[in-house]
Amino acid sequence: MEQNVFEEELKNRVSSVEGILAEFLPEETGYQKTIFEALNYSLLAGGKRLRPLIMREVYSMFGGSGPEIRFLMAAIEMIHTSSLVHDDLPCMDNDLYRRGKPTTWSKFGEDMGTLAGDALMIYAFETAAGAFSKTSNPGRVGEAIRVLASKTGIYGMIGGQTADVELTGKQMDGEQLEFIYRLKTGALLEASMMIGGILAGASEEQTARLENIARNVGMAFQIRDDILDVTSNLETLGKPVHSDERNQKITYVTLYGLAEAAEKVRELSEEAIRELDGLPVKNEFLKELIMNLITREK
Amino acid sequence: MEQNVFEEELKNRVSSVEGILAEFLPEETGYQKTIFEALNYSLLAGGKRLRPLIMREVYSMFGGSGPEIRFLMAAIEMIHTSSLVHDDLPCMDNDLYRRGKPTTWSKFGEDMGTLAGDALMIYAFETAAGAFSKTSNPGRVGEAIRVLASKTGIYGMIGGQTADVELTGKQMDGEQLEFIYRLKTGALLEASMMIGGILAGASEEQTARLENIARNVGMAFQIRDDILDVTSNLETLGKPVHSDERNQKITYVTLYGLAEAAEKVRELSEEAIRELDGLPVKNEFLKELIMNLITREK
Repeated sequence: MEQNVFEEELKNRVSSVEGILAEFLPEETGYQKTIFEALNYSLLAGGKRLRPLIMREVYSMFGGSGPEIRFLMAAIEMIHTSSLVHDDLPCMDNDLYRRGKPTTWSKFGEDMGTLAGDALMIYAFETAAGAFSKTSNPGRVGEAIRVLASKTGIYGMIGGQTADVELTGKQMDGEQLEFIYRLKTGALLEASMMIGGILAGASEEQTARLENIARNVGMAFQIRDDILDVTSNLETLGKPVHSDERNQKITYVTLYGLAEAAEKVRELSEEAIRELDGLPVKNEFLKELIMNLITREK
Repeated sequence: MEQNVFEEELKNRVSSVEGILAEFLPEETGYQKTIFEALNYSLLAGGKRLRPLIMREVYSMFGGSGPEIRFLMAAIEMIHTSSLVHDDLPCMDNDLYRRGKPTTWSKFGEDMGTLAGDALMIYAFETAAGAFSKTSNPGRVGEAIRVLASKTGIYGMIGGQTADVELTGKQMDGEQLEFIYRLKTGALLEASMMIGGILAGASEEQTARLENIARNVGMAFQIRDDILDVTSNLETLGKPVHSDERNQKITYVTLYGLAEAAEKVRELSEEAIRELDGLPVKNEFLKELIMNLITREK
């Protein structure tokens, strides 16, 4: 697939995801109006929409074509957004801006920022549970919800956030760093690919393979991030470089050096692509997307 | 049922609920150990365990006897606890103690307090989803999870918390106050009774009636709280009285006076008991429990 064709396709699919997301936004009315506003503001603040996008690509790759997927696509983006909203809070990263816009708490206050993150988390499950009314296979929807919760929770994303808070500023080793990368960044990608497969009827073995692919992609993506912080520049990256050095942050690059980091990205990507090619079903766009994530310059 | 028999029964059932809760506590090990500790600390800090208790009474009243209920019982207590953990945060009520023990954030830090509330919310759904592996009726478990999310979220408990934050300190009217009571206190009681019914196979009409009973009980419970704050004393209540007056809080009593508040509790209780008696199934203990909640002196 040529790069410009891919980019055009990607743009179309991102707007399609945003259209789906828009269907689930609550109306901003009632005594609890502020929470609806804060929730919608957070969800509409932009982003790559990577998780729902990948979920749908896997779903269609396995022949899925029902309405259930929309509920889970919206749900995973809500979960992802909730984690950003809480990460930005004064007691966490204390960020005033994200993607050039005021963070939820800095716009709505710290109490509403806390409640908006909570609201997004719960609304994600409320939305996901809506799929039960549109499916002839409640067992699959149940398994999708179980995976969503488990990859989000204490053994997934929240576990990773905890380890990050606990270990940052300490002399972390490679195993600890990989643990954080795998849970904090990787877990929701794993959920995206697994849920796409589960809802389309992928076998247990195929779902385990999807999990493994996503794990490698997530890790490669994160190490690529560490590399770009050292090698890129403000214009290309669109955000300040050398921030890890300034913050004395331990990264894959500070632990192993640039060359070994680049080699690791290559290994992880090759394994991900090999496993993807080994599946009995194909999706050229998904493959291209994964390659682009790993080799990206920004 | 004699009062001392009831109290003995209640004690037994509360320990049984706590035994179930204990089965779902995560092991405190791994790089994210602190979140496990904070989660377990919050869950084990005590409480009346009213929601899981009522859920199981309704379940057995409708003839339920399977293992699914345990997952949902633990889940609703986790949701309830998560709301307390976040309510206590400095940006919310800024409470250092709850039931005589340091609040989660004051023990583990503000960042871990925030993450622990998040973790409890998500772990609730992870736990609830475990019921899919133990049921022959995934549709019912799905409906139970949908109700759990919807009564917890922006149209339920979190909606009530938002309205409470927004309206407290302003000149609230009776409609606004009842909105907050119904959502903030009532919604999880509604979920408890409805889920007990749904999992045991109650009809839609019966589930709607359970919702209505719980709504009236929740409202009566809350107004009774307002009354006791004025009429009780420190020894009986076990916490300082006249706190609403000191905080210039608008309550049912400040809006309507003591006599009308007592009359409202009577009306709501009578309707709840009438509806409960109108069901084709009976549970004497549940009836006694509801009466006790409404007429309680502490």
